[in-house]
Amino acid sequence: MPISADFPFQEYLPFWDALPRELQTELRAAAQLRHAHTDQVIHTGGRCDGFFIIVSGRLRCRTAAESGRSITLFRLFAHDVCLFSASCILKSISFTVTIEAECDTDYLRIPPAVYRRVSAASAQAAQFTNEILASRFSDVMWLMDQLLNRRMDARIAGFLIEEARLCGSDTLHITHEKIAQHLGSAREVVTRVLNYLAHEGMITLFRGGIAIADSARLSELAEDAVP
Amino acid sequence: MPISADFPFQEYLPFWDALPRELQTELRAAAQLRHAHTDQVIHTGGRCDGFFIIVSGRLRCRTAAESGRSITLFRLFAHDVCLFSASCILKSISFTVTIEAECDTDYLRIPPAVYRRVSAASAQAAQFTNEILASRFSDVMWLMDQLLNRRMDARIAGFLIEEARLCGSDTLHITHEKIAQHLGSAREVVTRVLNYLAHEGMITLFRGGIAIADSARLSELAEDAVP
Repeated sequence: MPISADFPFQEYLPFWDALPRELQTELRAAAQLRHAHTDQVIHTGGRCDGFFIIVSGRLRCRTAAESGRSITLFRLFAHDVCLFSASCILKSISFTVTIEAECDTDYLRIPPAVYRRVSAASAQAAQFTNEILASRFSDVMWLMDQLLNRRMDARIAGFLIEEARLCGSDTLHITHEKIAQHLGSAREVVTRVLNYLAHEGMITLFRGGIAIADSARLSELAEDAVP
Repeated sequence: MPISADFPFQEYLPFWDALPRELQTELRAAAQLRHAHTDQVIHTGGRCDGFFIIVSGRLRCRTAAESGRSITLFRLFAHDVCLFSASCILKSISFTVTIEAECDTDYLRIPPAVYRRVSAASAQAAQFTNEILASRFSDVMWLMDQLLNRRMDARIAGFLIEEARLCGSDTLHITHEKIAQHLGSAREVVTRVLNYLAHEGMITLFRGGIAIADSARLSELAEDAVP
């Protein structure tokens, strides 16, 4: 649906005030407010769906492995901007991702053609795009370091602590399969590590979920490097 | 050393002709031509050395793991531009890399402050930076897919084929340790896989190097996914 006339774009797009009035009007008229429910896939493959701005909720961006393993690249929260749903804006992007809502999410969609015109007209807008790309690049480089230099038990410990923080609860309703998908691993590997963590008393397992029993030791484990 | 007055910037920077004359003059005056010999590290850690443009030769960019494993992220060839040696240009870059010459390399260095002024003044320059970031992002996403979905034997096979292509020879003078550093693996793992490939007749091993014996089978193996 169209957005209200007083939507505060300047809170989301730092270059807003520097845009010529006619581009502000065009962007405002073209932006649409959308809603996604938990687990809804809102972008996949090579589609050019547009530039998304998260108003509330949470999105997960993962590799779109047609065959093979996928991994969570990063998450986006309120005020974050998602570029990879509009990869046609940048001709040098040669990969695809899948973006899905992790909870009820409201987001703005800006059509690619409008964003392209804004970027071409405003050095500030193009520099904002640079900063977003650099920020996501930093997320992926952190992940690369995790893959290279952390043991799987440390990565699972870190994942459980992050999930507990996001959910605001030490009781997580999540399957072993789902954890494996986040971490780009196999379900059997995750189950083996979780059984080990439970045996060590750091977590307890129950049907459909995991409860953190000793978050201090789990946090310590999360820092362990590949031997 | 300073560059010659007729250095063809327009061949390296597609936004050159759109720059105001005074920025062209400033950039030309600030650019320096540098030389790096094989294996020379030209950038490391959080230093902000400037924006590099490769004139001839080849650079390798790898993760700067102070402790732990490093991996080759991508290589840069003549006409490529290296941004991560000037990470202060983008405040959202929170990782560091190491950049080294893989052979005798000539490159231009543009000071970060000059490039920052150019980007702020020209939407085309900022968009060029976007395309470079997007291109390197694509390289790293390819690597992420390799780490997740390729077996180590397939990755080593792919690496040997790529090296042979770059060297223009099926005889490679490279140590097992060096291959492990490129692939973010351990030397023992690489040695085990190379012994297997030699046993299968795809390569032959000699002191200080590897010769490709059956590049067709090696190429086939390079496509093998994680089972």
